[in-house]
Amino acid sequence: MESISPNVFNFSAGPAGLPRAVLEKAQSELVDWNNLGTSVMEISHRSKEFVQVAAQAEQDLRDLLNIPDNYKVLFTQGGARAQFAAVPMNLLGGKTKATYVDAGYWAQSAVSEAKKYCQPQVVEATIERDGKLAVIPASEWTIDSDSAYVHFCPNETIDGIEINDLPETELPIVADMSSTILSREIDVSKFGVIYAGAQKNIGPAGIGIAIVRDDLLDLASEILPSVLSYKLLAERDSMYNTPPTFAWYLSGLVFQWLKAQGGVQAIEKVNREKAALLYDYIDASPFYRNNVHSDNRSLMNVPFQLAKPELDSLFLSQADEAGLRALKGHKAVGGMRASIYNAMPLEGVQALVSFMKQFEAQHA
Amino acid sequence: MESISPNVFNFSAGPAGLPRAVLEKAQSELVDWNNLGTSVMEISHRSKEFVQVAAQAEQDLRDLLNIPDNYKVLFTQGGARAQFAAVPMNLLGGKTKATYVDAGYWAQSAVSEAKKYCQPQVVEATIERDGKLAVIPASEWTIDSDSAYVHFCPNETIDGIEINDLPETELPIVADMSSTILSREIDVSKFGVIYAGAQKNIGPAGIGIAIVRDDLLDLASEILPSVLSYKLLAERDSMYNTPPTFAWYLSGLVFQWLKAQGGVQAIEKVNREKAALLYDYIDASPFYRNNVHSDNRSLMNVPFQLAKPELDSLFLSQADEAGLRALKGHKAVGGMRASIYNAMPLEGVQALVSFMKQFEAQHA
Repeated sequence: MESISPNVFNFSAGPAGLPRAVLEKAQSELVDWNNLGTSVMEISHRSKEFVQVAAQAEQDLRDLLNIPDNYKVLFTQGGARAQFAAVPMNLLGGKTKATYVDAGYWAQSAVSEAKKYCQPQVVEATIERDGKLAVIPASEWTIDSDSAYVHFCPNETIDGIEINDLPETELPIVADMSSTILSREIDVSKFGVIYAGAQKNIGPAGIGIAIVRDDLLDLASEILPSVLSYKLLAERDSMYNTPPTFAWYLSGLVFQWLKAQGGVQAIEKVNREKAALLYDYIDASPFYRNNVHSDNRSLMNVPFQLAKPELDSLFLSQADEAGLRALKGHKAVGGMRASIYNAMPLEGVQALVSFMKQFEAQHA
Repeated sequence: MESISPNVFNFSAGPAGLPRAVLEKAQSELVDWNNLGTSVMEISHRSKEFVQVAAQAEQDLRDLLNIPDNYKVLFTQGGARAQFAAVPMNLLGGKTKATYVDAGYWAQSAVSEAKKYCQPQVVEATIERDGKLAVIPASEWTIDSDSAYVHFCPNETIDGIEINDLPETELPIVADMSSTILSREIDVSKFGVIYAGAQKNIGPAGIGIAIVRDDLLDLASEILPSVLSYKLLAERDSMYNTPPTFAWYLSGLVFQWLKAQGGVQAIEKVNREKAALLYDYIDASPFYRNNVHSDNRSLMNVPFQLAKPELDSLFLSQADEAGLRALKGHKAVGGMRASIYNAMPLEGVQALVSFMKQFEAQHA
């Protein structure tokens, strides 16, 4: 086994870094898990050993998020993109309209897919305020009362926007929490459906979560593919088809790691500290800029631009040499983006800020 | 790291055993892959490093199966069950009928799902011959000429049936090869679509393969969820949504391992030797029985019953103690089942036969 550099910090937007302790445990038992003489990925998903792994992961997630008993926890495949189709196909219940709140790329992608199944009523939710990108308060969103549900994405990873409030509505609220889940406290009881791809704060790519209020399980279209059916997944304990067992196991290890850190409340505190450190430095520097209003800055994805964009490549290559990986911004906005998911320690952000200061001193 | 018993042989029907050398390589680089200081599962699927992994895996699969240039190779999610919906939604092209050849549980499951989208014309393909389960020759299947395609499953894992011939037809032939792919030589050019879940002969659960002839990419229904679209997956190199990167990487390692074994032709020889050893012993013994006609016995899944079914539990527990894992038959047929996929060495089957002989000597 090769030696590991202790100084590598991975700012990937996803698949994102996983807690080192989780990877080391997985490594230690990769070939012989639970004294079976085989890997956990080589056993039947219906074996008593794997069913225990699956059930423990669900319970740990329920504990972490305080999920009420009237919600099913489903382990899904196909990421958030599959849910863009699954949501209307599961929830329309014969209605033809659904409200979609648009604060960026991912919400718009959900709208595009929903158009195959209904007439999305789109609420433009971003606005310029003080020369920065801001989100219109939820109390001002116009919600079509004939809608089957209200859909939004509370963390837009590309622009680095976070929505912190919820509309007052009787309709089920559906949230793509791929980049929000487990990063800060949420009140699950306010939602109809919460879904998320795993590859940010849950585990490796290839598994996802859907948390579904159980009164919403009987509204599906007849043409819903079975693998996307919330009801069927709920009835079959997310094992209607062979689930991604290794990804499920790893997600369970992440949940246990998060519990050991003190849970969501504790990690939120660290996440706020990490984000404040980075945003405060950016705001204080004339050399770096973030374009999002301070009310709506993402805790997880911090895009920033250099005052001299011609230095972007140099910044990125020198950062990489310093062990600060995957800082390139999304091509839609350019510049840099530091994704600082739960697995990123405070030291990683400190190392990034130190590097940014040094780079600024050399090039300002 | 714990010591590994060299005497464990895993007969799981799926998720099945993986080559030990593949797991050991994955273990050695799980925390620091390619000198990046991160795991392969922690990097962007769009990074040059991962794109290289993905492209190499595709090329190796193309080499192993001699896939012609006019076929796309797609990496899918949701297993074969997702394809049960994807096939009609991608291929009907406005037609209302498709022919489904029924030789067992998996073919029937495909029919159930297809009924949401078309009128499946079902061809009963099994028959009793010489007191055993046999398959009607493909030349005798009645194929509805208005069908969009002909679907079948050449290896039925539960009964342990294998179909070795193909119908003469102008229609695209679609095959669920979850348990066939890479186990024996196939002529891809005879098929319209070949699909497979990975968890038998490809890699871990959570990824799948679809090999699609490129004239079939423009027949999709408008309500097809994007994540199931062959065309979209082909256009986006199977990265329309974040793919299961670790499963893709592991599948690539399996392909490289298989090339090192001499490829499909070489492994087929070993597979035939393994299967013959087990079936010949069962046929020669009055204590064990296999119910499938010798023309249609699966190379990969060998179900067998004891003459004294009351000893099933004892057989299974003693086998487990001897390191022969996961031999319990599917609940639909009972008894035992030895799944002997590519990763099962000849020694494993030899160990099983030795154990069976010993058990027979004690209990006949």
